[in-house]
Amino acid sequence: MGKWVYTFGDGAAEGSAAMRDLLGGKGANLAEMASLGLPVPPGFTISTEVCTWFYAHERAYPDDLRGQIAAALEEVGRIAGRRFGDPAAPLLVSVRSGARASMPGMMDTVLNLGLNDETVHSIAEMADARFAWDSYRRFIQMYGDVVLGVDHGEFEAILEIERERRGLEQDTDMAAEDWQQVVARYKEMIEETLGAPFPQDPVEQLRGAIGAVFGSWMNSRAVTYRRLHDIPQEWGTAVTVQAMVFGNMGATSATGVAFTRNPSTGERELYGEFLVNAQGEDVVSGIRTPQELTEQARIAAASPGPSLEALMPEAFAGFLDVARRLEAHYRDMQDMEFTIENGKLWMLQTRSGKRTARAALKIAVDMAAEGLISREEAIDRVEPASLDQLLHPTLDPDAHRDVITRGLPASPGAAAGEIVFTSAEAERLSAAGRSTILVRAETSPEDIQGMVAARGVVTSRGGMTSHAAVVARGMGKPCVCGAGAMRIDVRSGTMTVGGRVFHAGDPVTIDGGTGEIMAGYVEMIQPALSGDFGELMGWADDVRRLRIRANAETAGDARTAREFGAEGIGLCRTEHMFFEGDRILSVREMILADSTEGRSAALSRLLPMQRKDFADLFRIMRGLPVTIRLLDPPLHEFLPHTDAEIAEVAASMGVTEAALRGRVIALTESNPMLGHRGCRLLITYPEIPTMQARAILEAAADVSAETGEPIAPEIMVPLVAMKTELDRVRKLIDQAADAIAVERGARPAYSVGTMIELPRAALRAHEIAESAEFFSFGTNDLTQTTFGISRDDAASFLEAYRDLNLLEADPFRTLDAEGVGVLIRVAANEGRKVRPDIKLGVCGEHGGDPASVLFCEKIGLDYVSCSPYRVPIARLAAAQAALATAREARTVGEAG
Amino acid sequence: MGKWVYTFGDGAAEGSAAMRDLLGGKGANLAEMASLGLPVPPGFTISTEVCTWFYAHERAYPDDLRGQIAAALEEVGRIAGRRFGDPAAPLLVSVRSGARASMPGMMDTVLNLGLNDETVHSIAEMADARFAWDSYRRFIQMYGDVVLGVDHGEFEAILEIERERRGLEQDTDMAAEDWQQVVARYKEMIEETLGAPFPQDPVEQLRGAIGAVFGSWMNSRAVTYRRLHDIPQEWGTAVTVQAMVFGNMGATSATGVAFTRNPSTGERELYGEFLVNAQGEDVVSGIRTPQELTEQARIAAASPGPSLEALMPEAFAGFLDVARRLEAHYRDMQDMEFTIENGKLWMLQTRSGKRTARAALKIAVDMAAEGLISREEAIDRVEPASLDQLLHPTLDPDAHRDVITRGLPASPGAAAGEIVFTSAEAERLSAAGRSTILVRAETSPEDIQGMVAARGVVTSRGGMTSHAAVVARGMGKPCVCGAGAMRIDVRSGTMTVGGRVFHAGDPVTIDGGTGEIMAGYVEMIQPALSGDFGELMGWADDVRRLRIRANAETAGDARTAREFGAEGIGLCRTEHMFFEGDRILSVREMILADSTEGRSAALSRLLPMQRKDFADLFRIMRGLPVTIRLLDPPLHEFLPHTDAEIAEVAASMGVTEAALRGRVIALTESNPMLGHRGCRLLITYPEIPTMQARAILEAAADVSAETGEPIAPEIMVPLVAMKTELDRVRKLIDQAADAIAVERGARPAYSVGTMIELPRAALRAHEIAESAEFFSFGTNDLTQTTFGISRDDAASFLEAYRDLNLLEADPFRTLDAEGVGVLIRVAANEGRKVRPDIKLGVCGEHGGDPASVLFCEKIGLDYVSCSPYRVPIARLAAAQAALATAREARTVGEAG
Repeated sequence: MGKWVYTFGDGAAEGSAAMRDLLGGKGANLAEMASLGLPVPPGFTISTEVCTWFYAHERAYPDDLRGQIAAALEEVGRIAGRRFGDPAAPLLVSVRSGARASMPGMMDTVLNLGLNDETVHSIAEMADARFAWDSYRRFIQMYGDVVLGVDHGEFEAILEIERERRGLEQDTDMAAEDWQQVVARYKEMIEETLGAPFPQDPVEQLRGAIGAVFGSWMNSRAVTYRRLHDIPQEWGTAVTVQAMVFGNMGATSATGVAFTRNPSTGERELYGEFLVNAQGEDVVSGIRTPQELTEQARIAAASPGPSLEALMPEAFAGFLDVARRLEAHYRDMQDMEFTIENGKLWMLQTRSGKRTARAALKIAVDMAAEGLISREEAIDRVEPASLDQLLHPTLDPDAHRDVITRGLPASPGAAAGEIVFTSAEAERLSAAGRSTILVRAETSPEDIQGMVAARGVVTSRGGMTSHAAVVARGMGKPCVCGAGAMRIDVRSGTMTVGGRVFHAGDPVTIDGGTGEIMAGYVEMIQPALSGDFGELMGWADDVRRLRIRANAETAGDARTAREFGAEGIGLCRTEHMFFEGDRILSVREMILADSTEGRSAALSRLLPMQRKDFADLFRIMRGLPVTIRLLDPPLHEFLPHTDAEIAEVAASMGVTEAALRGRVIALTESNPMLGHRGCRLLITYPEIPTMQARAILEAAADVSAETGEPIAPEIMVPLVAMKTELDRVRKLIDQAADAIAVERGARPAYSVGTMIELPRAALRAHEIAESAEFFSFGTNDLTQTTFGISRDDAASFLEAYRDLNLLEADPFRTLDAEGVGVLIRVAANEGRKVRPDIKLGVCGEHGGDPASVLFCEKIGLDYVSCSPYRVPIARLAAAQAALATAREARTVGEAG
Repeated sequence: MGKWVYTFGDGAAEGSAAMRDLLGGKGANLAEMASLGLPVPPGFTISTEVCTWFYAHERAYPDDLRGQIAAALEEVGRIAGRRFGDPAAPLLVSVRSGARASMPGMMDTVLNLGLNDETVHSIAEMADARFAWDSYRRFIQMYGDVVLGVDHGEFEAILEIERERRGLEQDTDMAAEDWQQVVARYKEMIEETLGAPFPQDPVEQLRGAIGAVFGSWMNSRAVTYRRLHDIPQEWGTAVTVQAMVFGNMGATSATGVAFTRNPSTGERELYGEFLVNAQGEDVVSGIRTPQELTEQARIAAASPGPSLEALMPEAFAGFLDVARRLEAHYRDMQDMEFTIENGKLWMLQTRSGKRTARAALKIAVDMAAEGLISREEAIDRVEPASLDQLLHPTLDPDAHRDVITRGLPASPGAAAGEIVFTSAEAERLSAAGRSTILVRAETSPEDIQGMVAARGVVTSRGGMTSHAAVVARGMGKPCVCGAGAMRIDVRSGTMTVGGRVFHAGDPVTIDGGTGEIMAGYVEMIQPALSGDFGELMGWADDVRRLRIRANAETAGDARTAREFGAEGIGLCRTEHMFFEGDRILSVREMILADSTEGRSAALSRLLPMQRKDFADLFRIMRGLPVTIRLLDPPLHEFLPHTDAEIAEVAASMGVTEAALRGRVIALTESNPMLGHRGCRLLITYPEIPTMQARAILEAAADVSAETGEPIAPEIMVPLVAMKTELDRVRKLIDQAADAIAVERGARPAYSVGTMIELPRAALRAHEIAESAEFFSFGTNDLTQTTFGISRDDAASFLEAYRDLNLLEADPFRTLDAEGVGVLIRVAANEGRKVRPDIKLGVCGEHGGDPASVLFCEKIGLDYVSCSPYRVPIARLAAAQAALATAREARTVGEAG
């Protein structure tokens, strides 16, 4: 026996906002609002534990659930003054899903439940006949689609026929008798399709709707959304059953959605839209274009319809008050749904509002300035990964723009790509590495994967809270909505606007910050860290302990990294320098040489080029540490592979094709990831590290002489499994330093360390630390070897693993704390025992992943190194990690 | 200041046999013999610490070494009644190397040192002039070659000219004046070649010789030998300087070598050979054919020359007594060198004799029977790996043999292959997977690698103690020596015998047990465990704790394994069954199927075949456990790859080449070792484990019904990294069992376990053990992933690693206790904590490696599984491991 059902309404509730896990976000916040005394229609929430029970028992329910629901319905009816199923004063309810995390558009909803051939008459008497029959047909349509699985096209076809038969253009023109006819036709169609009549018993209706909500938790859209947002399947959804209120009772009724601040820019202004005489679904579906809430917004948008503020000043004032109370109560920007029934305001939902990265930043910084939250809370309020949106190019204001039309600025950022009209096409081209802009009349949950694949989204219908807008903002994807001048013909693959025709594949550029849609590709410029961004970064820097370095080898990358606040280079991959210009020729000569002498001669031509590369980096990173990794990849990566390339390279090098092909074949490996690379290469071709060490140390000496400041490069040896390997390469580096000491009369300063990227290296860290002044955890390769998974080959089964829920997170994105992390922890501890001042960092791609940064903070590493564009993300993540760790320590301290 | 020099002689010694590490085997045993009062020429040993010092200080010596050597020389001279460098009564010495482990033929020796233009006259006066000048020219020749680096061909050329000028055929025909002439010519040639005269100062001569011995420790032959025999470079060599005694002083002098038991068969009989009027080098060089020691042996060999027993009965009796005392003292078969100078016996060396595996077995079993050693000691006396020789095929006695000639049965065993005349050719063909017989006039240390590469060795010259014979026995390689009827012409690549000409590439078969050389390939038969072998195995089984299983999938392998004492199957690789006969067609159909149904249809054709395979194994292994691994390799291994194969397979399957090629390309992986295989395959193609589980369980039920005995197969899931993977596959197996339970009315018994072959699996063993009833450590893959080394690609650098001494042992042969072993230990401990009765075993190739078996014993695994032919090796290794562990426990107990 458990408690499965939690009631709310009439200024009281069994639940609260803190019970989000149990009641879902919607149910918890409805309970909280009821407790706060806000106007909430009474209702109850069936907890997520029922969902868990449901899936653990082959979609059955706990025995005592039925009784608890009946009791709750009784209570709701008491408050509302009606009874569920009572033909005289029927209680109508909505049934909605509500998971712990918001999953917009993913779950199904049923409104007006409780209507049947009897109760429709009572409603007609209480309100009016047209409203009653319109509500009934809406109910049948929704219930038929969502619960009974009847294709919604069937309903639309009937509606269209009936409308045309009467010569009517709009649904609003339909009269009560017309809707009665539609209801009759709907019921016939359902009976014909399913072989059973539309259920008339409200209890049966409710049972069906609850089952449909729980069932929808596992539909493929929901599964996709969860995978995209790392939401565990185990959480389950709650079901909220609530007395209906009607925004569609006529001109004094309305329904709308609102944010307490602008979710796109973060400005402190009530932001939202509403429709008169409509139900909630009408707003988000984007079929009618909604009106602004405030006069200010209406004027700014130059909208024709009146604002809510002007139209229903009393209800508006009430709502404004509620909005302010909610923001102050929750200490965060709120996203609310409301309905006005015959002039009375009802709150249907409140939750933390989704926002763009830019808005999140501004809201966090503003709220800290307003004293609503602390700076530390402000730091925690911004999702580090979301900064990615602000760190990517925007349109060059000086570039020529061929603006073809304008829509709503639904999700900021600039994007360019080929026009595609279907999600499938977006996915196909994206897989082929091409950039696309998804152009749709409106989007639906079925488009999620296409939206993920495209660079940007454009719709011709819908407002700022339409599906496309909400989802795109959540993804940080540029989006322009409701570009009504655009005519889209999916079949012919064309889009027509202002007399111009664009075809699938034509390039367009969009600016989600202005709503502009432009022909062709428009030039973009790099982002900068200023304003709120700079402010928050400063706060983050004040609290973080981890240093942030960048992985960079070109001067351009190094400069970007420094501008983004990198505190040094954590990984300079010297092999990238081997491909530039005509260097590759010398590299190939080296590989083809038969002797040490031949290799040395080719390397001596590379020496001055490498020296210059390093000198540039030292100048840019002046005053900051620079870690340079010696050559890592297998030599065959530098050779041509196809017959045509071999012929060309052989000719240009003056060797025979056969000789070149022979070398290519000799260097081919079964498992190159585990092959002749890293220190194995440096040991078998000692000329290579000798040359590289010389280039590094000479460059350091040159720049040091130039600036008068000492430079001590960190030279890193890759792929070490045994101390003997590091010792061998270290000896070659030391010998190069000795030679320079003799030549220049002063011994260069430097340190030598190693990548820890093989399990054995982690297990022998206590030995290796005797010879290594620093460890840099190469988490990419360490993940590959610890899991025994080649990243290049993993797609074929990791996808299946995610579908089967075998894997919590992609270990190549988020560090696997339970496996790979154990090795890192052991190596860090053992390394420090032997050499207490050993420098420890991470230089895999995990360095820019917030969850992985938290792990690095927890085990006390010194720094993480990531790509230049992720440096601000890492800075913020490091700050959050420091705060979380401090919180945890306090909790433990208090518990102790 | 250290003690660098240890003297011996005159019934006393500063060293002893226990000081082998410091004095080398030779020096330690000379000291021991001196202490025992045996006739040993006085001398001293410069310790291995000097060698270490020498290489640590750029080939310099400790300051106080010179004084210690001078003092020791003084003492030796006192005992011998002569003085080093005294023109009147000169002390002549030999200088020999002596490492901790015997390295025959690897190190250089100089005899007769101390001779110069003055002392040669004193020797002439004391003995005779011919002897003196012959000794002097031998000294110049040896010293010139070994110390001064003059090509020995130069000496031979002079000698040949001088002999021919005098019309003499043999060196023995040369008179004193002739040798004096040769000496003069040698000295001229040396002065011309080196620009400096031959050193006349005995002290300088000695310094040069000592330096040459230490220097030879790092020559390439020595390095190769050490690598082959896992001798660490750090051990170093000692140098023994000893007063010369002369076996070449005329008809009452002789020199010889002997074993206390027959090193080939193990028979208890004095075994050896000698030459009258010769120095030690003459015996082992194989230039003169030596005579037998005993009358019995002479008669058995039908030799023309008299035995030592007949020729010098008194000296023989003395030697026989010494030999008996030495064997009793050392409690092991001894290999001795002796010299008789004018009728007086001198012992020059004794050491544990090398022996064939067959001899080692017989000697150990006999000595235990004689009460000389305990059964436990007998177990420890046999090198498990050497049993390999006894476990391989011998010639079928009923097969036709075309015997072309006969030589000495120098190292037992049968081998067949193509004739090669050079070591380089043996290596080349062996690398190409071809079998060869190396045919040489005689072998030298330069031939070591060729001998390793060849299946067997034949020489036309030399006796049972010649280089070829000694080295071949050490390697367990079949060898026939001194086949004098054979004429070899390396240039034309032919071998002529009895009028028949054989060319390089012609097949021959040799029997090293009889000395027969046969034309063509002769049929062979399988070995059996009987006699001494069976006896020792029984003793081993009594003391070992580890169970020994075999890796086997065919009925033939399973039978062999059981005959060799396997206690079950530890690894049945089901994929091997997929290639047999027309099964591969169904496998390919499965791979090419587009749907689950198509795959299931193809698999249903495989089901009865797999069921029969498993039923056969269960019958053969009746009463013993059988572990069956589900499909492991990536699917592309079952598809054709070349264009020709693709065309053929496509035609036979009735699919287009394009379709087949498309599938091949789709399945191609960058790093297949880390790709879509193992449980990843079982999860993405659940039809496969479902079919295999059914085949296993139905077969078990069938055979159980047949025999009336229960069978509970152990089903093993490969390549698990996460518990969720094992759970998923386990569920499929359980479902198959459920289905069978319904069909047959009884639920089959079975257990499910996993390979631990990825570092992550070892690190999460505590979780995985919740779902696994057994762990089998797949040490091959675990070594690959822990080191990040692909075994297939490792040759290119592991060879260099060995040369550079970066690696103690090949981790693919001997388990890397420090890295891979740490993971195994952790997994074993954590697994047991969660499931105390979890079965733990090893099924990689390490299961048959004695050092790895010791590791498995130490960490308390339950069993090791290896290839059928290695089962007896593993049984003996497990016994030795149990004894070693018990000894260690006692030592710790006593210390505590």
